[in-house]
Amino acid sequence: MSRVRVHNFSVSLDGYATGEGQSLEAPFGHAGTRLHEWFFPTRSFRAMQQEQADGTLGVDDAFASQWSPGIGAEIMGRGKFGPQRGPWPDEEWQGWWGENPPFHTPVFVLTHHPRPSLTMAGGTTFHFVDASPKEALALAREAAGGLDVRIGGGPSTVRAFLTEDLVDLLHVVVVPIVLGRGVRLWDGQESLSERFDVESASSPTGVTHLTFTRRTPS
Amino acid sequence: MSRVRVHNFSVSLDGYATGEGQSLEAPFGHAGTRLHEWFFPTRSFRAMQQEQADGTLGVDDAFASQWSPGIGAEIMGRGKFGPQRGPWPDEEWQGWWGENPPFHTPVFVLTHHPRPSLTMAGGTTFHFVDASPKEALALAREAAGGLDVRIGGGPSTVRAFLTEDLVDLLHVVVVPIVLGRGVRLWDGQESLSERFDVESASSPTGVTHLTFTRRTPS
Repeated sequence: MSRVRVHNFSVSLDGYATGEGQSLEAPFGHAGTRLHEWFFPTRSFRAMQQEQADGTLGVDDAFASQWSPGIGAEIMGRGKFGPQRGPWPDEEWQGWWGENPPFHTPVFVLTHHPRPSLTMAGGTTFHFVDASPKEALALAREAAGGLDVRIGGGPSTVRAFLTEDLVDLLHVVVVPIVLGRGVRLWDGQESLSERFDVESASSPTGVTHLTFTRRTPS
Repeated sequence: MSRVRVHNFSVSLDGYATGEGQSLEAPFGHAGTRLHEWFFPTRSFRAMQQEQADGTLGVDDAFASQWSPGIGAEIMGRGKFGPQRGPWPDEEWQGWWGENPPFHTPVFVLTHHPRPSLTMAGGTTFHFVDASPKEALALAREAAGGLDVRIGGGPSTVRAFLTEDLVDLLHVVVVPIVLGRGVRLWDGQESLSERFDVESASSPTGVTHLTFTRRTPS
C-alpha cells in the first residue's frame, strides 16, 4: 500500500507553520523566511532550485533529501499554489513555482474554485480539485501509480489529513523561534501521540527534526 | 552579577507547560505526568526524592543536573506551591513539596495573599510575597547571597519574567506530545529569538533540550 507522507514541514516553538498576512510577495506572511533558513543551505534545496548541487550534507540535508524519493503525487492547499482567495482573478498566473516546478509529478491543488489543469515543464501537472481529503487522496493515489503521496501543506491541509487519520509519516522541523501569530499545525491534534511513534534529532543549525510514524497503518 | 535561570521547564509541541484543570490531585491538570516522564528516571530527579541515586546519567540527566548547582533562591508562582486561589482556606497545609522540599534554599512564592513564612526541613523556607517580578527578584537576590536565582514556574510566572527581560538562561524541554489546552509558555514572546542565542540537543527519550542564553545581560 502506498504511504501518505509529510516532509520538511517547519513549525515555530508556538506551533505556527506560517505567519500572518500571506501575500504574493510574502508567501509565509510576517514569518518571512525564518521557518526555512535551515533548509536553504542544503544540497536538496539547491538541487530543487536547479542550482549547483553544492549544498550541505549534514543532518538537515539527510532529512530534506527524503522529500522526493518514492513520491508519485502531491496534494497541496490552494495557499501553497498562490495567495488568491475566492474565484480566480486571472488564470494566466501559474503559481509561485515557476516554469519548471520542483515537484515533477501530478500535484492536486485543493480549491473550491476548480480551473483547467496546468501542465508545466519537468513533469509537474497542477490539477485543481474541489474534494475532501479522502477524495483527493484517492485521486492522488491513482495518479501516483503505486508510489507514495506527499501532503505538501500548508498547515490547514496537513491538519485536515491528520484529523482524518490519513497520514502515515509526518516529518516536522521545530524551529526555535516564537512567531506569535499565523496558522497553527497542532490545533485539534491531541490524539497525535497515541497514534504515532516519534523520534527526534537535533541539528547543529538549532532545529529539531521530529518524525512521527503511524503505529497501525490502515 | 548573579544570573536568573529557568531549568527543566517542559512544554508540549503546542507550547503548553501545564494542562487544564489543576487540582490537589492533578498539579498539571489533564497533562498528568506526560510532560515530565523524561525527568523521572534521571539520577537528578531520584536524588531530589531522596531515593537511591541510581537513575540514568544520559542526556536528560546532564541537563536536569544543572537545576541545583549555583542556585541561592527560587521564585515560584502560587500554583507551584498549591492549587488554592484567593484567600488561603487553611494555613496548616504546607504545599505540595512535603516536609523536606527539594529546594534547600529560600523560596519566594508570588501571591496576592501573603501569609507567614514557612520554615521546612532541609533548608527550604517559603516566603509569601505580593510583589512584581522586579521586586521579587530583588528580594530573592538578597536572599541568594550572590548566587543565582531560579525562576521555578509555572508558565505564567516564567512568562512574566521573560516579558520584563529578566531571564538570563532558559532551559526548555520540548516534549513531543500535543496537549491542546492548558497554560502556554510562549504567548507574547515574539521577541525571544532576537534576545537569546539558542542551542538544541535531542535525547533518545524523544524530548529536545533547548537552552536560550541571553545575548546582552543587563
